[in-house]
Amino acid sequence: MADLLTNMDEQLLAQRFVATRSHTEALARPLSAEDQTVQSMLEVSPTKWHRAHTAWFFETFLLIPGLDGYRPFHPDYGFLFNSYYEAIGPRFARADRGLLSRPGVEEIAEYRQHVDRAMSSLLAGPLDEPVATLVELGIQHEQQHQELLLMDIKHVLSLNPLRPAYVAIVPPLPNEAGSTTWTSHPGGLCRVGHKGQGFGFDNEFPRHQVYLEPFAIADRPVTCGEWLAFIEDDGYHRPDLWLSDGWATVTSERWECPLYWSPTGTGWSQFTLGGPTVLDPAQPVCHVSYYEADAFARWAGFRLPTEAEWEVAATDRPTNGNLLDRSVLHPSPVAGSGAGSSPYGDVWEWTSSAYSPYPGFEAVPGAVGEYNGKFMVNQYVLRGGSCATPPDHIRATYRNFFHPRARWAFTGVRMARNA
Amino acid sequence: MADLLTNMDEQLLAQRFVATRSHTEALARPLSAEDQTVQSMLEVSPTKWHRAHTAWFFETFLLIPGLDGYRPFHPDYGFLFNSYYEAIGPRFARADRGLLSRPGVEEIAEYRQHVDRAMSSLLAGPLDEPVATLVELGIQHEQQHQELLLMDIKHVLSLNPLRPAYVAIVPPLPNEAGSTTWTSHPGGLCRVGHKGQGFGFDNEFPRHQVYLEPFAIADRPVTCGEWLAFIEDDGYHRPDLWLSDGWATVTSERWECPLYWSPTGTGWSQFTLGGPTVLDPAQPVCHVSYYEADAFARWAGFRLPTEAEWEVAATDRPTNGNLLDRSVLHPSPVAGSGAGSSPYGDVWEWTSSAYSPYPGFEAVPGAVGEYNGKFMVNQYVLRGGSCATPPDHIRATYRNFFHPRARWAFTGVRMARNA
Amino acid sequence: MADLLTNMDEQLLAQRFVATRSHTEALARPLSAEDQTVQSMLEVSPTKWHRAHTAWFFETFLLIPGLDGYRPFHPDYGFLFNSYYEAIGPRFARADRGLLSRPGVEEIAEYRQHVDRAMSSLLAGPLDEPVATLVELGIQHEQQHQELLLMDIKHVLSLNPLRPAYVAIVPPLPNEAGSTTWTSHPGGLCRVGHKGQGFGFDNEFPRHQVYLEPFAIADRPVTCGEWLAFIEDDGYHRPDLWLSDGWATVTSERWECPLYWSPTGTGWSQFTLGGPTVLDPAQPVCHVSYYEADAFARWAGFRLPTEAEWEVAATDRPTNGNLLDRSVLHPSPVAGSGAGSSPYGDVWEWTSSAYSPYPGFEAVPGAVGEYNGKFMVNQYVLRGGSCATPPDHIRATYRNFFHPRARWAFTGVRMARNA
Amino acid sequence: MADLLTNMDEQLLAQRFVATRSHTEALARPLSAEDQTVQSMLEVSPTKWHRAHTAWFFETFLLIPGLDGYRPFHPDYGFLFNSYYEAIGPRFARADRGLLSRPGVEEIAEYRQHVDRAMSSLLAGPLDEPVATLVELGIQHEQQHQELLLMDIKHVLSLNPLRPAYVAIVPPLPNEAGSTTWTSHPGGLCRVGHKGQGFGFDNEFPRHQVYLEPFAIADRPVTCGEWLAFIEDDGYHRPDLWLSDGWATVTSERWECPLYWSPTGTGWSQFTLGGPTVLDPAQPVCHVSYYEADAFARWAGFRLPTEAEWEVAATDRPTNGNLLDRSVLHPSPVAGSGAGSSPYGDVWEWTSSAYSPYPGFEAVPGAVGEYNGKFMVNQYVLRGGSCATPPDHIRATYRNFFHPRARWAFTGVRMARNA
Repeated sequence: MADLLTNMDEQLLAQRFVATRSHTEALARPLSAEDQTVQSMLEVSPTKWHRAHTAWFFETFLLIPGLDGYRPFHPDYGFLFNSYYEAIGPRFARADRGLLSRPGVEEIAEYRQHVDRAMSSLLAGPLDEPVATLVELGIQHEQQHQELLLMDIKHVLSLNPLRPAYVAIVPPLPNEAGSTTWTSHPGGLCRVGHKGQGFGFDNEFPRHQVYLEPFAIADRPVTCGEWLAFIEDDGYHRPDLWLSDGWATVTSERWECPLYWSPTGTGWSQFTLGGPTVLDPAQPVCHVSYYEADAFARWAGFRLPTEAEWEVAATDRPTNGNLLDRSVLHPSPVAGSGAGSSPYGDVWEWTSSAYSPYPGFEAVPGAVGEYNGKFMVNQYVLRGGSCATPPDHIRATYRNFFHPRARWAFTGVRMARNA
Repeated sequence: MADLLTNMDEQLLAQRFVATRSHTEALARPLSAEDQTVQSMLEVSPTKWHRAHTAWFFETFLLIPGLDGYRPFHPDYGFLFNSYYEAIGPRFARADRGLLSRPGVEEIAEYRQHVDRAMSSLLAGPLDEPVATLVELGIQHEQQHQELLLMDIKHVLSLNPLRPAYVAIVPPLPNEAGSTTWTSHPGGLCRVGHKGQGFGFDNEFPRHQVYLEPFAIADRPVTCGEWLAFIEDDGYHRPDLWLSDGWATVTSERWECPLYWSPTGTGWSQFTLGGPTVLDPAQPVCHVSYYEADAFARWAGFRLPTEAEWEVAATDRPTNGNLLDRSVLHPSPVAGSGAGSSPYGDVWEWTSSAYSPYPGFEAVPGAVGEYNGKFMVNQYVLRGGSCATPPDHIRATYRNFFHPRARWAFTGVRMARNA
Repeated sequence: MADLLTNMDEQLLAQRFVATRSHTEALARPLSAEDQTVQSMLEVSPTKWHRAHTAWFFETFLLIPGLDGYRPFHPDYGFLFNSYYEAIGPRFARADRGLLSRPGVEEIAEYRQHVDRAMSSLLAGPLDEPVATLVELGIQHEQQHQELLLMDIKHVLSLNPLRPAYVAIVPPLPNEAGSTTWTSHPGGLCRVGHKGQGFGFDNEFPRHQVYLEPFAIADRPVTCGEWLAFIEDDGYHRPDLWLSDGWATVTSERWECPLYWSPTGTGWSQFTLGGPTVLDPAQPVCHVSYYEADAFARWAGFRLPTEAEWEVAATDRPTNGNLLDRSVLHPSPVAGSGAGSSPYGDVWEWTSSAYSPYPGFEAVPGAVGEYNGKFMVNQYVLRGGSCATPPDHIRATYRNFFHPRARWAFTGVRMARNA
Repeated sequence: MADLLTNMDEQLLAQRFVATRSHTEALARPLSAEDQTVQSMLEVSPTKWHRAHTAWFFETFLLIPGLDGYRPFHPDYGFLFNSYYEAIGPRFARADRGLLSRPGVEEIAEYRQHVDRAMSSLLAGPLDEPVATLVELGIQHEQQHQELLLMDIKHVLSLNPLRPAYVAIVPPLPNEAGSTTWTSHPGGLCRVGHKGQGFGFDNEFPRHQVYLEPFAIADRPVTCGEWLAFIEDDGYHRPDLWLSDGWATVTSERWECPLYWSPTGTGWSQFTLGGPTVLDPAQPVCHVSYYEADAFARWAGFRLPTEAEWEVAATDRPTNGNLLDRSVLHPSPVAGSGAGSSPYGDVWEWTSSAYSPYPGFEAVPGAVGEYNGKFMVNQYVLRGGSCATPPDHIRATYRNFFHPRARWAFTGVRMARNA
């Protein structure tokens, strides 16, 4: 029989559950029913879908199998709000999430309350370890959707000619980013991956050895000002700087700058969750694809770090940057050379590592085993979290991943070089 | 100087304006903010877009040019809510209307009120003929959008696995459709087109002569029961029955029945504005394309009428069928053979006539000249109005038109044959 | 029992068969095996496919059913070379005709000889009327493919950066086109359609009455010089001149001029079957779509003729223009005002008539009944034949048809107006 | 000044040049002009294009810059036959290579002879090292295109309903594949990459260290018989076995078996370069995608090797398997357990390694630097060569790469597992 949690651990878990759940609702609050309904592209989900899907996760993996007498809120929600779990059964097509006017935001609020009440019973205990692990997974899952909710609604609002703001954002004080400093690392045989204490996703395991050549990594991410120099040096029109698939993309998509940038008569504007603002050259560049990150690095004479290099360099640094708790919702200007600044927050940083299983990786059995492993192809690893990442969600070993053409996440760039 | 309207005529026009405007709002009332936001395919517009666009029409063609001191409600609405008027300037892409969460339903209600207040000033007169003609055009335009609003929301709701009803619909009493009777017409040189009294769209002019061979036309539309016989005789799988483009469509779209029909274990269900119901064989078949109408006619050994045949046969019949004023919102069962029944209402009837200008047709100068003429290619004429058509909107000379693959309008079939 | 042909008629038919068959081979002779293999777009078929398909027609409709002991040349050719006859069975996908390297040009030459030998037996008689009618249909069918072969190979060669010529073409002497003269017609009740003597396609029947308003028709087609004026007056960029679907096409396809025209530094070049040449302003404009023809007419202040107007005006004129027998393979310059010039040859002329069945039209029973009727939707009628049409193939009642966006046929424009 | 080659080395290089060039022509010889013209999908090039492009390589990188007085064969060939070298200038669109009927096979034979004659002058020396390196690169490049030519024509012929053979292939004697044996490796810090003696592509450098966990690798590739068991166990219909992108592909493409397999009434047939044959269960499975290879491995309870594991295991083995010199042109049946059999030949083996630059990789400056580096995204590494790979072209460090959905190369699978 599985070990039971202590009362203290149960209470802590229940508190984290409540806090996470209510944070999601707080993030949705500035949005109208109409805002919460729109799906602006295949990869984007409506806000109300995020709210329902995260409730579905707890209902499906915890309440239905684990709470005696639980009655699902609605017989069709299992079909409507399954994201991609093949083992759970058929699901509504992802591309059509924006067609669903019903259930509306009020029904979804009721659904969440229904699930929260039942979870409260379940969390009152006693809880054994496997159940607690699933609850923790559900919390982490919901935190991921908090960031997705923000990424997605930013995309939705950006396509509206009215250029509406999600919330008012106080612009940060102007700053001056100096030239980058670098931190060297001797390389050699290093250990990477999760050590096993605290929560980690399956893709962070097992901890294992890698051999690294000596390298150096920049102390801060690439700034908008540096990106402007790339643009001005015709970076978007020089095929020699680009991977072949990247060049095909930049050409067919007619990219001329990062997503959400637009030229004004005299300079550049960027669309933010606070609406349009003047581009600040000291801010980390954001909303660039892997292709752009790679091309910029080639232009600059450097390269992207591997995920192992990034992790080795970030280990032992506190996770205290510009994360979601600051509510800035936009990358903050870099101060000076970046020496001493946190590797966390502001922007996810593209690495040159394809998203692959670690040696000895094993997916968890059952439906939750679909969580990470099945996406390990055609994507690249990003590290460090962004201004939309909850601070208790990020760590040095955390592996985020996107397709190399994706730009709607808060994605940026950090340089590395051979030492 | 243009003639002025009498006080009486002004008052009548103002009353019609108010009634039409408030009817649109009544049609939107059963719908949530979420419902009013969704665009389910390219041809469908969100409900709130219809509400805003019909206001835009009055603002653009009457208030801005004609009401002293009028201030447009919002500087961007001219761009957002122009449907297709090239002469008015650029417009927001039709395919992306479902991306617009803002303005929301409340702002659009305010927009409509703003326009209504200003129109009330304008309609207080004095009004000259050209202005009154434009007001009438705006009213007719809004009536068209009332039908579009219903067609469109039916499509939106139909794609939702929850199968929600727009409103509760009382199912009609069961009925028995007998075999069709026919009315013969001697043909010869006939006159068709609008006679010039009362409102008519430009495409109904000029009245002109056509030579017709003797023909007979059925006294009622084709029923669902007859359509079932077509299905059971393998009608959707026999290429000899179909036009070549129709066969390509039926094959690529995998059509097996009219839109909104679905097989149940024991029979057929159809989705209506009242939600799913059991198929009633006595109802006129609805939501079929021109291709299907043509194939059915070939199978039945008859043909579709030309628009001239339809018009000649319908002339002098009162416009009193199952139209929008009955609030049935669905075709009503045919009683008996159909002899004596109205050619109007229930379903628009496909004719075999391509939508072309009448001899001597001239588009009105200016932007409103884009109303009809520029669509005179690749479409087929339908006649008679449907259960979603306002009764004061339809007449014998009225020419509706859709592409031959369209199925989301309330479209049905009436048989004709050579006499 | 069906009537038998006289010996004389049999011999004439056999001679026409041989002449037509050898003409096809003569048209293919300038083309390499590689040239004959390429399919440059969906609508285009490879030359060797045309050669095989026309043999297949005789094999399928005459030899297999009608010649005792006939052995089909190859068991798979029935599948490979069926164009669109659903009643004959499955067929190889049209879009993939360019994938077939086998059979090669030599096997196809053998196939044609095999069919010709067998047809020679069959044509030695005795022949009854129904068989003779099918032979005549096969000859007419092959003549249509002669024009298609030329249209198609022109498209293939035009896409090759080497700009190769099909054959050397002697450029005509320069000419000066004067301003157009017009011929008036009183209209009234007119008869159109085939009178029943000599061959006619089913779509030309039955002869019937139409009522026409008085009209005038231009004595010559629109010239390249006139088209240049349209271009220079910004005709391709003014939405008010275009049908809505036409404007969508011109925009998405980025049309700026007729197909095969290209700007040089100082003027215009056009690609012809003789390779690139300088544009001659006195030539009839060619390779324009219905959308362009319609827009030009609106710009010029006129309109396209209906097919009935065209036919009424052309009746009693000899069919002696610039047709395939002249081997010019390109429209010839117009001399003077065009008064007295032939309505036939040079370019097919778009009419404003959608391609529809005549009143009382009946398709022939069986597979050959698929010849025309099933295409009677979404297309427009063209009249008069072109420089690629065999002279014994054209007549006043002949109805050609293409989709309104098609440009690769030798299609031009003649103006009409209300009288 | 660069070092000069010895006479001996010059002669050897010239001999290799001549042998390679004439081998290409020998491979094209069984193909008709029509066969050599067809492009069956975007990734496939026509045979005659391969022949021309490999000549273009020598002309562009050696003759034009390096042979005094060299006159290019044709001014447009630089545009027509550039594959992807952005630095060389614009090029004809890859998707349209099948549109080019001209130049024909004879002109291309002349082009090759023209280039060969000029190369013969250049190779007569004296030659310095950089030039010799480019000649060697051109030879290696042409060898790659020999395999591509065979892959591509197999695809072209496979789509023809006549199922034609490229050449007659003598079917191998039947065989019995036993169960696989495995070879273990202790892992640890290993060196991989090219040692620097003999030719290597830039992507094989620099040699570097990797840390490997202990592993075992199968002694032979997966056979068709084993693949049949996967099919029979419903492998193509179980989403739990597939990567998410793989499942999307298998679903949308409706894959049910490897490319070129087709069910017969009683078993399976496969299309080969010798035409259709009965499937031999003892043959290595071929023409599977990365997605299928990965799913099979998961089903079998094993995994794919990494490219480092593959290389470490293959080092020191002679390169003597079923390669192009045997002219079998199809994978040969496995004998027994595979112990002692060559890791080379038969099928390229998918590894689980995304195609990425080695640590310290530097692309060569200039246009030839586009050879490999710019493709290092979205592809997976394959090792070992196939029955279509020239034997002097393959080695342990050789990195081939394809997109994970590609199936038209001779691609197969070898199992690995953790030790």
